[in-house]
Amino acid sequence: MMISPIFFVYSLILSSSYAAMQDFCVADYAAPQGPAGYSCKDPAKVTVDDFVFSGLRVAGNISSINKIGLSAAFAFNFPGLNGLGVALVRADFAVDGVVPIHSHRDASELVILVEGRVVAGFIASNNKPYVKTLNKGDTMVFPQGLFHFLVNVGKTPALAYASFSSSNPGVQTLETALFQNDLPTEIIAKSTLLDTVQIQKLKRLLGGTN
Amino acid sequence: MMISPIFFVYSLILSSSYAAMQDFCVADYAAPQGPAGYSCKDPAKVTVDDFVFSGLRVAGNISSINKIGLSAAFAFNFPGLNGLGVALVRADFAVDGVVPIHSHRDASELVILVEGRVVAGFIASNNKPYVKTLNKGDTMVFPQGLFHFLVNVGKTPALAYASFSSSNPGVQTLETALFQNDLPTEIIAKSTLLDTVQIQKLKRLLGGTN
Amino acid sequence: MMISPIFFVYSLILSSSYAAMQDFCVADYAAPQGPAGYSCKDPAKVTVDDFVFSGLRVAGNISSINKIGLSAAFAFNFPGLNGLGVALVRADFAVDGVVPIHSHRDASELVILVEGRVVAGFIASNNKPYVKTLNKGDTMVFPQGLFHFLVNVGKTPALAYASFSSSNPGVQTLETALFQNDLPTEIIAKSTLLDTVQIQKLKRLLGGTN
Amino acid sequence: MMISPIFFVYSLILSSSYAAMQDFCVADYAAPQGPAGYSCKDPAKVTVDDFVFSGLRVAGNISSINKIGLSAAFAFNFPGLNGLGVALVRADFAVDGVVPIHSHRDASELVILVEGRVVAGFIASNNKPYVKTLNKGDTMVFPQGLFHFLVNVGKTPALAYASFSSSNPGVQTLETALFQNDLPTEIIAKSTLLDTVQIQKLKRLLGGTN
Amino acid sequence: MMISPIFFVYSLILSSSYAAMQDFCVADYAAPQGPAGYSCKDPAKVTVDDFVFSGLRVAGNISSINKIGLSAAFAFNFPGLNGLGVALVRADFAVDGVVPIHSHRDASELVILVEGRVVAGFIASNNKPYVKTLNKGDTMVFPQGLFHFLVNVGKTPALAYASFSSSNPGVQTLETALFQNDLPTEIIAKSTLLDTVQIQKLKRLLGGTN
Amino acid sequence: MMISPIFFVYSLILSSSYAAMQDFCVADYAAPQGPAGYSCKDPAKVTVDDFVFSGLRVAGNISSINKIGLSAAFAFNFPGLNGLGVALVRADFAVDGVVPIHSHRDASELVILVEGRVVAGFIASNNKPYVKTLNKGDTMVFPQGLFHFLVNVGKTPALAYASFSSSNPGVQTLETALFQNDLPTEIIAKSTLLDTVQIQKLKRLLGGTN
Repeated sequence: MMISPIFFVYSLILSSSYAAMQDFCVADYAAPQGPAGYSCKDPAKVTVDDFVFSGLRVAGNISSINKIGLSAAFAFNFPGLNGLGVALVRADFAVDGVVPIHSHRDASELVILVEGRVVAGFIASNNKPYVKTLNKGDTMVFPQGLFHFLVNVGKTPALAYASFSSSNPGVQTLETALFQNDLPTEIIAKSTLLDTVQIQKLKRLLGGTN
Repeated sequence: MMISPIFFVYSLILSSSYAAMQDFCVADYAAPQGPAGYSCKDPAKVTVDDFVFSGLRVAGNISSINKIGLSAAFAFNFPGLNGLGVALVRADFAVDGVVPIHSHRDASELVILVEGRVVAGFIASNNKPYVKTLNKGDTMVFPQGLFHFLVNVGKTPALAYASFSSSNPGVQTLETALFQNDLPTEIIAKSTLLDTVQIQKLKRLLGGTN
Repeated sequence: MMISPIFFVYSLILSSSYAAMQDFCVADYAAPQGPAGYSCKDPAKVTVDDFVFSGLRVAGNISSINKIGLSAAFAFNFPGLNGLGVALVRADFAVDGVVPIHSHRDASELVILVEGRVVAGFIASNNKPYVKTLNKGDTMVFPQGLFHFLVNVGKTPALAYASFSSSNPGVQTLETALFQNDLPTEIIAKSTLLDTVQIQKLKRLLGGTN
Repeated sequence: MMISPIFFVYSLILSSSYAAMQDFCVADYAAPQGPAGYSCKDPAKVTVDDFVFSGLRVAGNISSINKIGLSAAFAFNFPGLNGLGVALVRADFAVDGVVPIHSHRDASELVILVEGRVVAGFIASNNKPYVKTLNKGDTMVFPQGLFHFLVNVGKTPALAYASFSSSNPGVQTLETALFQNDLPTEIIAKSTLLDTVQIQKLKRLLGGTN
Repeated sequence: MMISPIFFVYSLILSSSYAAMQDFCVADYAAPQGPAGYSCKDPAKVTVDDFVFSGLRVAGNISSINKIGLSAAFAFNFPGLNGLGVALVRADFAVDGVVPIHSHRDASELVILVEGRVVAGFIASNNKPYVKTLNKGDTMVFPQGLFHFLVNVGKTPALAYASFSSSNPGVQTLETALFQNDLPTEIIAKSTLLDTVQIQKLKRLLGGTN
Repeated sequence: MMISPIFFVYSLILSSSYAAMQDFCVADYAAPQGPAGYSCKDPAKVTVDDFVFSGLRVAGNISSINKIGLSAAFAFNFPGLNGLGVALVRADFAVDGVVPIHSHRDASELVILVEGRVVAGFIASNNKPYVKTLNKGDTMVFPQGLFHFLVNVGKTPALAYASFSSSNPGVQTLETALFQNDLPTEIIAKSTLLDTVQIQKLKRLLGGTN
């Protein structure tokens, strides 16, 4: 009878339910999170399906305003990603579709354009823009936390995949952060220099109040 | 003759100039940076003055637009901070002074109001604002990478210190990122929903073109 | 009817209670911690008051021995700081007040002297001291884990704020670590070279035994 | 004349060439690396082209053995990725194409199948395999450092993109690590339990010696 | 009556059970893990025995195949290690004993040979082997995630201690990962280039199926 | 002619001298450090000897005061360790030998007693000591940044190996930090509560001045 040397190490760990040395930490959405992510599902209950996600098979719903459909494979809906530091978004652009200016508080983004032609760019913190027209097959990287955007400038729909250096990249979109809530118009005006009429117009469009 | 036990460890390191085990990495601005920060100054040339900074003794110049004066103690001007994960800003508010909406790509911020009365707030990535009036002695924390602002709502000048969880926290200010550069008006319009006239007005005010 | 493109992302997350993608992790003190900090409070129950702290409005009690009053805004008493990597202490020095030699196991410290005149210093691991007299408005940084101290050498009370690169910086003070517990005098003597009489005297003063 | 409040901060940094506060660290391949990545190119010389990469427009050469073509966008050939914690590979599978068993020493991998049908799997450190047939649009994640593989089981070519949680993910492939070098056959035999004839056969195939 | 200045800070924390500022996070195996490790035991219940481990006093059982006995002090069996980033293994080699080729997904390893004479080596991701005969007292480091092995080439038993840069270093052993499970022979053959007979032979030896 | 699929990836990297994707970062002591460690030696010049260290074969010199001999395998004298997050010390205790109270600013320590009988302990930041007598084969962990010590209480010499969670763990020893430099006696007295005579006596013993 042989016993693999490493087997010995593992045989120590069967006695208490959560003591296993884990290679992964599949999210258990029913337990509290910590600063490093979701609690781990009991490894005995983990299956291969926790590591596979089919939600990017189809395009997200195209929004009537920005003409863009987005589907995310993030740790909040793809439990196997928890703690692994990577995530993915599928972006389907209608003609004239736009991914509006936004930033990710904790992730850099690497986008690959699979179909179409888009203008993509980011703005550095010294206000300098880095903007380029991407063609099919091109990739562009947006450094962590900086404003960036993509605009479909081709005559056809476009398709892109965006990878992130976080399994749950926060997304803060300028237009909804400013106008899709009840932040008082006066405070927005003072802290952005935007005109009151402009703010009120966009609050109406995006569903904000105050 | 006694020799401290630990002394032995250190005596090994004197032979080659950069081999020292360092407790700190004072920035050498003349050498290239890496992703983790500036190169370290030769420890033999480091003095206590590398760890002391007097640039926050006085208020920064008050800007005519936002009525705010800002002075920073960041790794780019305070070499002892390099690699240590902490930095400080002094904010002097004139009456009606505003720290406009901005974010830090790699740092959370903890502000303490030392004089005056300000409204402070941040916006979460689900667009929910968290806003509060701060009085003298209050502190508020802005989580990493989220939009935040401070508005002097008192009848007197105000003074605050802001601490950061990075030694070189990137600062991206909404109004200058959008309007103080040559990013084409059309792209800004598409990717923010702002009106062209509004964009052009603020580009003129802030010195942008296109 | 418009739907913000990003709204779609968030609508996926409402079904299970803890699945939200979080911008912050407000401490839930009733749940166990992990190595990265406290468990997160259910985001639906977080309010702006979790991010605001008024405990630094007033000076801490001045101790009769060191003539120093300390108030802390750390993750253990300011829940919004949890996981954000920054914290703050207010130090009120009476005349002759001293922050005794101590270290932080996981944080660098950046102190700003707001009132008064103090001698501040740290000792590097090659035993070299870096000491400087700070005047009003000066800042000094103490690299992580090294012994440091501040002594009020002015003729008036002094006030300082200290920022940390951790939200729960451990504090280990030499005099209390050695003398305010039941560590046997003989072990202290052997492992510090201090005389037995000296150890016993300070144990009596600080409440230690053995 | 107005000056943006933040502009002040930046005006301090123009005097010394590398003192700039950087949002990114574009690789300078002519300077030494450090443990955190390549040295940063002088930010004044950085252009948008440092952040855009066209090397994934076309398939990599299909190898005659594994019938797979691989193209990488890693920090070693895409300088803008340096320090940003994300990278991308394009994998073109001929019919019967295989990405052989390999691991990444410092990265998790998230693969999306864009065309075709492949069997993908990884093996956990308790030897348990997690294997699944992926269809067009499916994603699967391989946790950091574990053996994984993909086999084209469809009747047509397949195409996948793999994202990584590192900007320079090390790749260690079992067959080439064992057989494409001069590691003595006897050592391989002892430390893998493989037969000598098997080892020698694969050394011949893959160009190894000894 | 004196109160230590720091004592004040701690007196704040006694009211709620888990609020303590912790210097350590002793594993509570009965609670779920997170991506950063096990939940912390209530600090009031921690004793010195949580930080001491006697499991390495004796050799592990010598396996009949590899003639090696391994004992581990990892966070899964030594609760005080949790979150501290260090672990230890004791390896007892019989004559001809081998630590077979394996890797650690998240740890570098530093081995010290205490008795005997072994050949040790690792293979870099460009397939280059780094191999050396170690004598008593020599140490060798194996960088994170790379294949490595040790072979007793002396005429006597050997003893080594291996330190790790993780408190729960994953261990993936080539022979058991490939042959001690139910991964189909055909998939192994395609993704390793090994012959079917070889695979089947080792599956039989090591207890695999399919 | 076959080409391994991964070979293709590597063939891209030969053109520029430092562009290689590195599995390790062997220290180049002639180049400046950064916050993450030493610069990397050109990988083409790295040999297996960079990963092997023989400096722990023999005991360090036994100091006349503490009766302890220490030898270190740290990144400053063992270049292969640079950036790998692990280091090792050999401690040879004479009878009555002591490793005096010290801390490591950036590393936890895991000690294994190979010969003899020692009392080992650490002091938590709430001043609570955790002390235990270790016998041959026992291991004990000292959490990062906390004071700890070891005292030989057996009647024979003792031998221990200490592993660290850093490749260059800073070492700050209480007795030398306080007394082996020119820090003024008056400042030490104020910031430790030690008596002037005690301080002066130990300064004389350890070579301090002032």
